[in-house]
Amino acid sequence: MVDELAVLRDQIDDVDQQLVELFARRLKLVAAVGEVKNRQGVSIYAPEREAAMLVKRRAEAEALGVPADLIEDVLRRVMRESYASEKDVGFKCMNPTLGKVVVVGGAGKLGGLFVHLLKLSGYHVSVLEKNQWAEAEPILSEAGLVIVAVPIEQTVAVIQQLPELPANCLLVDLTSIKEEPLQAMLAAHKGPVLGLHPMFGPDVSSLAKQVIIYSEGRDKDAFDWLLAQMHIWGARLQAVSAEEHDQAMSLVQALRHFTSFAYGAHLCAEQADLTQLLNLSSPIYRLELAMVGRLFAQDPNLYADIILSAPTNLHMIRRYHSRFGELLTQLEQGNRDAFVQQFSAVSEFFGDYADIFLKESRNLLAQANDSRHLPNSP
Amino acid sequence: MVDELAVLRDQIDDVDQQLVELFARRLKLVAAVGEVKNRQGVSIYAPEREAAMLVKRRAEAEALGVPADLIEDVLRRVMRESYASEKDVGFKCMNPTLGKVVVVGGAGKLGGLFVHLLKLSGYHVSVLEKNQWAEAEPILSEAGLVIVAVPIEQTVAVIQQLPELPANCLLVDLTSIKEEPLQAMLAAHKGPVLGLHPMFGPDVSSLAKQVIIYSEGRDKDAFDWLLAQMHIWGARLQAVSAEEHDQAMSLVQALRHFTSFAYGAHLCAEQADLTQLLNLSSPIYRLELAMVGRLFAQDPNLYADIILSAPTNLHMIRRYHSRFGELLTQLEQGNRDAFVQQFSAVSEFFGDYADIFLKESRNLLAQANDSRHLPNSP
Repeated sequence: MVDELAVLRDQIDDVDQQLVELFARRLKLVAAVGEVKNRQGVSIYAPEREAAMLVKRRAEAEALGVPADLIEDVLRRVMRESYASEKDVGFKCMNPTLGKVVVVGGAGKLGGLFVHLLKLSGYHVSVLEKNQWAEAEPILSEAGLVIVAVPIEQTVAVIQQLPELPANCLLVDLTSIKEEPLQAMLAAHKGPVLGLHPMFGPDVSSLAKQVIIYSEGRDKDAFDWLLAQMHIWGARLQAVSAEEHDQAMSLVQALRHFTSFAYGAHLCAEQADLTQLLNLSSPIYRLELAMVGRLFAQDPNLYADIILSAPTNLHMIRRYHSRFGELLTQLEQGNRDAFVQQFSAVSEFFGDYADIFLKESRNLLAQANDSRHLPNSP
Repeated sequence: MVDELAVLRDQIDDVDQQLVELFARRLKLVAAVGEVKNRQGVSIYAPEREAAMLVKRRAEAEALGVPADLIEDVLRRVMRESYASEKDVGFKCMNPTLGKVVVVGGAGKLGGLFVHLLKLSGYHVSVLEKNQWAEAEPILSEAGLVIVAVPIEQTVAVIQQLPELPANCLLVDLTSIKEEPLQAMLAAHKGPVLGLHPMFGPDVSSLAKQVIIYSEGRDKDAFDWLLAQMHIWGARLQAVSAEEHDQAMSLVQALRHFTSFAYGAHLCAEQADLTQLLNLSSPIYRLELAMVGRLFAQDPNLYADIILSAPTNLHMIRRYHSRFGELLTQLEQGNRDAFVQQFSAVSEFFGDYADIFLKESRNLLAQANDSRHLPNSP
């Protein structure tokens, strides 16, 4: 009987080997697509082409009795690799007469990513680091674009220290707050100004589908080419005022980071047994624990900077803490009905998003479960 | 130039069609494997076979210039489908002389999943619902296994109402707390007793890799067959005492659920613009928002039950709230150094897990980004 299984498994191995060969062929074709896109100046991320292709493949799959979600998930995963390899081919340069680009803090991770992408797009890029500040003037002279990519705390000071830039030079920052740096840039430079906030870590394999928020500073005509360039890199550009940006970020960043920090500190104070918690956990709790734990593999100063970047952040966190306390007191007083009522009110607030999130997270939790390794391994 | 792109895309479409055909062939082979496993009584989840196969495929992929992670991710996704289809073939029955199985609350979702799996394994399964309580005695007479699958709040009462069961009948519950139901079962029945807590929702496509926690009540020899049966279904069985289970669950369930509830209530009170938050969000925040939002597509009573299932849960949540407040006060007083110090202490507490979680979540966040749809769609 074991032999019967072995014969079938050999056949499955054959199929899987053909799968590997198909992927190799597909990646070669995609590299060729990348070269054409590079010449044409087309974005590596083509959402309409992607959506149309998936509709066709889903239908073909169903006709052959293959679950449509399986083929969609696989193709989405393959496309991630395609974007990454298209990226390496290089990108069309949207502003060939720009002149020099200088990335202040370009040796850092995020600055380095922009240096890399700008070079792949044919620009001449220089890096200016702290220890080169004496040479700042010659390095910055004749710059067509200056990007400030230093830690939040230092951003305003670095902007204020900049020597006078050429009048038509575009000044840009990458900080995760927008009001203060934008004000500082507008005060320090009379030419075009743009605030950017890339919503991803420097370790992404490509910019396909990644969000870059931008807040206009001055002279949109003079920075449209940079938006077009980032669009070619695959990014989704979202315009928002600096004020709205900072308000949203006190929820999206400050509150979430602080909450994760407090949850980690709580687990530590409770002397929780992490190995046992993982052994006993559902995919959803494992995921939540991972989202908290990942914080502590990173630099505390980055999180301190983000949380302390605006006093309104601490006010937001304090309001959350108060509400949390009130809701808890209710339950401690045995008022279960109030809990159920408030829960329903929040459900109404989430509206269609609650179901969308349930569906989306179900798929992600299934993917998290796919990756579970041997029993009892961490 | 556009034609050049069209030619390449046609070739990619050809490759993708072959991909669909390969998947169709693989699923047929897997169905045949399922039949053999069914006859042999082998678990649908074979971690060693899976690990060995992935090592081989990764090496073959690299030899052809295909990223090893790509083939591993794709095969893991394909295997999920395989488990689901192996499941439908049925399972070997590990206790053919058991006699009747009765699932109290078997019309509910989780109870229904066990009814389905037990039937697929060749057992005779009856369901006992509230409205049939008058016939409880005849339905339960001659039962070899009784599973109580009713909401937490009702579990103890239902157990106490059970008529006398046959002496050698195995009594089991599926509740997400273990101390109280186990005590109630031991008091109500003199035969073998087992507490189970399945750590997954009723909508999983198969039990492969899913965790089922068990707490021994009485007479391990008389329930070993059920553990073996669930192992065949693909589950990972974790033994833990009822007391340790309930302690862990106040962290894994009560605190996390309450925190998500409070965060949802906070977003609602702040009148947050969800569409804008999603447009401006990183994959990580979108994921966190989804994990919170999914709660509100579900039944408030389920969450009230879990949180209120033990007074120690509320004590745990209160301790978290106090610590959160202390950590926040520190920051409000401008004590950044204390934040950085405590952060580092928690990093040490997480140890190797911090890096493991960072790596694991990076992969999941990339998968979350793969699934992003057209710009501005929810």
